[in-house]
Amino acid sequence: MEEINKTLNKIKQPDILKEKAAQRRLDILTKPKDSLGLLENIARRIVGITGKELPQISNKVIFTMAGDHGVTEEGVSAFPKEVTVQMVNNFINEGAAINVLAGHIGAKVIIVDMGVDGNFDRKDLVDLKINYGTKNMTKESAMTKKEAIKSIEAGIHVFKQEIISGIDIVGIGEMGIGNTTSSSAIVAALMERNIEEVVDRGTGINDKLLKNKISSIKKAIELNKPDRSDPIDVLSKLGGFEIGGMAGIIIAAASEMIPVVLDGFISGAAALIAYSLEPKVKDYIFASHCSVEKGHRVTLDYMGLKPLFDLELRLGEGTGAAIGINIIEAAVKIFSCMATFEEASVSKKD
Amino acid sequence: MEEINKTLNKIKQPDILKEKAAQRRLDILTKPKDSLGLLENIARRIVGITGKELPQISNKVIFTMAGDHGVTEEGVSAFPKEVTVQMVNNFINEGAAINVLAGHIGAKVIIVDMGVDGNFDRKDLVDLKINYGTKNMTKESAMTKKEAIKSIEAGIHVFKQEIISGIDIVGIGEMGIGNTTSSSAIVAALMERNIEEVVDRGTGINDKLLKNKISSIKKAIELNKPDRSDPIDVLSKLGGFEIGGMAGIIIAAASEMIPVVLDGFISGAAALIAYSLEPKVKDYIFASHCSVEKGHRVTLDYMGLKPLFDLELRLGEGTGAAIGINIIEAAVKIFSCMATFEEASVSKKD
Repeated sequence: MEEINKTLNKIKQPDILKEKAAQRRLDILTKPKDSLGLLENIARRIVGITGKELPQISNKVIFTMAGDHGVTEEGVSAFPKEVTVQMVNNFINEGAAINVLAGHIGAKVIIVDMGVDGNFDRKDLVDLKINYGTKNMTKESAMTKKEAIKSIEAGIHVFKQEIISGIDIVGIGEMGIGNTTSSSAIVAALMERNIEEVVDRGTGINDKLLKNKISSIKKAIELNKPDRSDPIDVLSKLGGFEIGGMAGIIIAAASEMIPVVLDGFISGAAALIAYSLEPKVKDYIFASHCSVEKGHRVTLDYMGLKPLFDLELRLGEGTGAAIGINIIEAAVKIFSCMATFEEASVSKKD
Repeated sequence: MEEINKTLNKIKQPDILKEKAAQRRLDILTKPKDSLGLLENIARRIVGITGKELPQISNKVIFTMAGDHGVTEEGVSAFPKEVTVQMVNNFINEGAAINVLAGHIGAKVIIVDMGVDGNFDRKDLVDLKINYGTKNMTKESAMTKKEAIKSIEAGIHVFKQEIISGIDIVGIGEMGIGNTTSSSAIVAALMERNIEEVVDRGTGINDKLLKNKISSIKKAIELNKPDRSDPIDVLSKLGGFEIGGMAGIIIAAASEMIPVVLDGFISGAAALIAYSLEPKVKDYIFASHCSVEKGHRVTLDYMGLKPLFDLELRLGEGTGAAIGINIIEAAVKIFSCMATFEEASVSKKD
């Protein structure tokens, strides 16, 4: 827990004076004032976060964190649990959506085994496996408190390892059959919401599985009695290793003044854990899209985060984050590369 | 008019059988069914439009069409008319937002002088000037019917010229002080709407200028009595040369089975002219964003077009189209490059 606390303590507020200077620059670029809407808002935030007067986004990194979930025993997903292992292999072989989209935006994908129930003998995967899947949270705590702490610390480590090669922006995504069930449980517990408000069909489950999913979450919360004032307790009782890992990346990024881009609902649950540990992380987070999973909107609203777009995505892996990073990069280029009225000899507003 | 009619007659419906085949492929890619939402819809449409089984988007072209508007005499814009010339020079010098965003997405920008009130001695601009700005539509017809036809034909020409080098997707944008006034007049006339429903603050005008703008449009429509059953008549009486040019590009792209991506409100008005000439063009159009200009949403709804995103943009030039093209390219890559369940040995849904 010491490393987590050290990282949390390092997080400071973005530089408001630099944000104001960024606004002054935005207002002298050759365009009507505010006419680039949210792109201007993004650019201003990036200046405040990074503290750089003319930021550049070159090194883009997406962490795709994988883990298995014991709760799949309850029949909560449309896909069998083996799909987690299979999809991780698909990531390694570059056949998945996240590989295609990361290629499109020029980002590096780092695949992390946080706790998949299976082994990989591949070098192109970061092995931070904490256990072979979580336990079934309807019967016991999903993980021990020690494992929960370890999962967050693993996220911090993998981020710090990568920062050596340079990171200008980071995206997070995940793979784990059963992890919308875990995420719904986490956000319901942390925000004190009814399960029904934050549960949805995940990979596309039918009514019967949806019933299972809701009752499993209720059972898990009743049995484990998570303490909402202690996010680590919530994570350990209801969580997933990949969710803890993403929370670790978020706080590590914030502590290093690097913007972090969420993907969908599961990364939103991870953000909520990070936010519950230290609300200041919010200023470093960009919500890329609003997922079809209804708990996502509720969670983002709770943290005061506004998604950049809504393409009706519900895949995960970091796919929405990739598109979000691309838009943020566009905003930063606008800011850093456009001509000013003076440079271009263009008349200002009458 | 002969060339316009010839182009319109060439427009056929996208290939529905190929769209169905595309859906079958989407359903065997390694992701839950429909989980990529609108990206899947985009990919399916691109297959239908282009007729290509595994389409690729390599050659991206954005046409930024410029023209001046006589109605600026009435005090309808926050910027002086000279800004059109100045901004065209800024495009040529690659200092404008569209240059930055086109660079970001790897698109070529073609700047076209459709009727700017000024001269350029620059080679990196396509000179299709029809006149030195339109006439003041509150006092007379903005252009002659011959000029209106010529402006659409010019759009067809510039597109056909470029298709020789290859175009996989085309974006359209514009520059012209006063052109939201012209666009509001056009869409009000073609859709029979109240001016107030489709007029907004353009580059950011104050209440006084907004009043001028509304009364100028009313005056222009009363004086010129545009015939809504004749889009060329509407264009000639209320239009701009750049708007006619964009309408020409849209019908040319549709006739060549090439997808065309709109930018904001003014390109939407151009699309409405093209749509009024031949509703089939709609199937070739992608609306990138929904502009802050309120007439834009009304116009897109009228044509049944759903914008991909809303970043509160209101700049024009093709900026929203650039981001739209980038998202479409991502969707096409997803479609053409992802592994299937079989290829990746991933289990399908239970």
